[in-house]
Amino acid sequence: MISEKMKTLVAGNSIIRVMFEEGKRLASLYGAENVLDFSLGNPSAPPPEAVKDALLEILNSGKDSEIHAYMNNAGYEDMRGIVANHINKLQGTKFAARNIIMTVGAAGGLNVVLKAIINPGDEIIMFSPFFSEYVNYIANADGKAVIVQSDIKTFQPDLAAFEQAITKNTKAVIINSPNNPTGAVYSEETIKAMSSILESKQKEYSSQIYIISDEPYREIVYNNTFIPYVTKYYNNSFVVYSYSKSLSLPGERIGYIVAPDELFEFETLIQALTIANRILGFVNAPSLFQRVVGKCIDVNVDMTVYTKNMELLYDTFNRLGFECLKPQGTFYIFPRAINNDGAAFCKKAAEDHNILLVPGKAFGCPTHFRIAFCQEHEKIQRSVEKFEALAKQFK
Amino acid sequence: MISEKMKTLVAGNSIIRVMFEEGKRLASLYGAENVLDFSLGNPSAPPPEAVKDALLEILNSGKDSEIHAYMNNAGYEDMRGIVANHINKLQGTKFAARNIIMTVGAAGGLNVVLKAIINPGDEIIMFSPFFSEYVNYIANADGKAVIVQSDIKTFQPDLAAFEQAITKNTKAVIINSPNNPTGAVYSEETIKAMSSILESKQKEYSSQIYIISDEPYREIVYNNTFIPYVTKYYNNSFVVYSYSKSLSLPGERIGYIVAPDELFEFETLIQALTIANRILGFVNAPSLFQRVVGKCIDVNVDMTVYTKNMELLYDTFNRLGFECLKPQGTFYIFPRAINNDGAAFCKKAAEDHNILLVPGKAFGCPTHFRIAFCQEHEKIQRSVEKFEALAKQFK
Repeated sequence: MISEKMKTLVAGNSIIRVMFEEGKRLASLYGAENVLDFSLGNPSAPPPEAVKDALLEILNSGKDSEIHAYMNNAGYEDMRGIVANHINKLQGTKFAARNIIMTVGAAGGLNVVLKAIINPGDEIIMFSPFFSEYVNYIANADGKAVIVQSDIKTFQPDLAAFEQAITKNTKAVIINSPNNPTGAVYSEETIKAMSSILESKQKEYSSQIYIISDEPYREIVYNNTFIPYVTKYYNNSFVVYSYSKSLSLPGERIGYIVAPDELFEFETLIQALTIANRILGFVNAPSLFQRVVGKCIDVNVDMTVYTKNMELLYDTFNRLGFECLKPQGTFYIFPRAINNDGAAFCKKAAEDHNILLVPGKAFGCPTHFRIAFCQEHEKIQRSVEKFEALAKQFK
Repeated sequence: MISEKMKTLVAGNSIIRVMFEEGKRLASLYGAENVLDFSLGNPSAPPPEAVKDALLEILNSGKDSEIHAYMNNAGYEDMRGIVANHINKLQGTKFAARNIIMTVGAAGGLNVVLKAIINPGDEIIMFSPFFSEYVNYIANADGKAVIVQSDIKTFQPDLAAFEQAITKNTKAVIINSPNNPTGAVYSEETIKAMSSILESKQKEYSSQIYIISDEPYREIVYNNTFIPYVTKYYNNSFVVYSYSKSLSLPGERIGYIVAPDELFEFETLIQALTIANRILGFVNAPSLFQRVVGKCIDVNVDMTVYTKNMELLYDTFNRLGFECLKPQGTFYIFPRAINNDGAAFCKKAAEDHNILLVPGKAFGCPTHFRIAFCQEHEKIQRSVEKFEALAKQFK
């Protein structure tokens, strides 16, 4: 007697999470050290020291009655101000506290934005390969997911196909750069072209079409790759952010939404976002960690290991003849499987080599597979000869 | 261009939250000390010392890389086991870790349960006066709220009306005991009668009808009032709990769902709940506070001030001739307004006396008004002569 929609989800379950459980099972059988579980994006870099320092400072402030209390559903006014100022410093923007809503991670933030804007049947465009949870988040708000392909080598969106896909029912487009699962970063050219297409489509349909930029990996970037800040290119845009990766706090569920003044009917929209945060059951972002991010606003995780892992894996796949984009950000790499069958490759990797990967079909791209390389470097080193063996098996 | 549903909510906004903002405005005008803001259920009892001790112990455990990480969407296995054992100790039940899902507070837990069971159009019964957010939570899952009256003096549900209200589309009934806003506790007789009605209706319609027991106030109880544990009376029942009140941690968003083995299709249902926790964007209950509640499992807030406040207010309203149930739990009292117009009474209280109350219409009971007495006792003392003056004004 459970919900029919949920029955389908129970039957399918998330491939990624199934792999996570499979990893725990294999680890209990063969020992954790003998399983190379590259399935889940659980950051391996420890939280920066500053996080613990901030927690202790707050806890020892003598304000026990305040630090765990309710506040405005949008979050602490002063913390929202600190976040706004930080973005302004980096991006030259002019946000204030009113433009920031603290959220239960980016997953919470995305659900809040979608709830605030979607009417039943509204279409939300996203680009494959995509983070598969978007489909569920859109369904939660009774929207309809519309998938547009990316270029299979560069993983930049196919802008001609994008333009074709926009209809009078299009309410938003979700972008995710740096991208999970590909590691691609959308170029300024891409963002400009996308904005220009949306501007003209808004005019054509007398509609409002939003860009929702999901940016949990903004700080997880290699070689100082430039990541355009979308609010500077397009008025009707939201940025959704999480500290899960930049401070390695995924379990704490802390992030924010940026809602610029330039959004159509900003005043109503900001109320809608605040109310959505409440009625969806988040109520507010966890209070202690709002203050922690306020104290750690300039802090980021040490990227050394992620960088070493990325370089080693990219060199390995390149050397072995896999088609593979060099990641510009995230801690994922997304090679094409040798026989264009990501699922078969992942099955072999698990069965013969105790390596857990995620088949590309989980991201709408079944020819590829994803490696989450947020791992100790030693594990990545050990995986190299296993990938060499797999390459031979498939040739 | 926001969602039409959200437009309605923005227009209406939550009366309680509007009062909260009004309180801040009055405080900035007249000074916080001159405003008696009794509108919001923000616990005034400080978190027990044990909470801070637990936080420091966890933070100083040297496990920085683990304590903020992702875990199973249902929560840490060991913490779920601790919660299960604690309930077993108090209730004589036989729950295990598999029966517990850690959630983002009770608001998160309720949304997860409703998402897991509701098909569009399913009816969810609740009893007025009720916590108004239930209506939104039910709508989030595309269900239909059906409201049944309680007895206006005892605030026990009208069981004849309840039986009448059950149809083939009834999926669940939400109960809330100790009750917000009335302070009533449902008697064992009520729970038994309700269970018996549901058993026979399940047979009549060959359906499954769930009781969802929302219990954030289970520990906030006076004179050791007995609160029946619903899973012991009815198989198809969920308990949804929060530590917001028992540990005064409302901002931290930590609670749990109890899903007993006896639930129809338990195995599927527990998966549905876990997936719902993920796809609704909660992902998991905040990780650090899962461990905190594990260490504070036997701890409760000091009830001294709540008890003093309750007794003083009840005596005052009784003496002034207000019809008023003596609260058995919660930190709310819910008198009938003198001219049966809760809104007029609250308006006068704010305008003439700087007292912020919530009109009963916010809870589906417009003849009454709610006082949240989670306040320093001195403020409650100061309010007495103001209520005396109000009683004269309305006579």
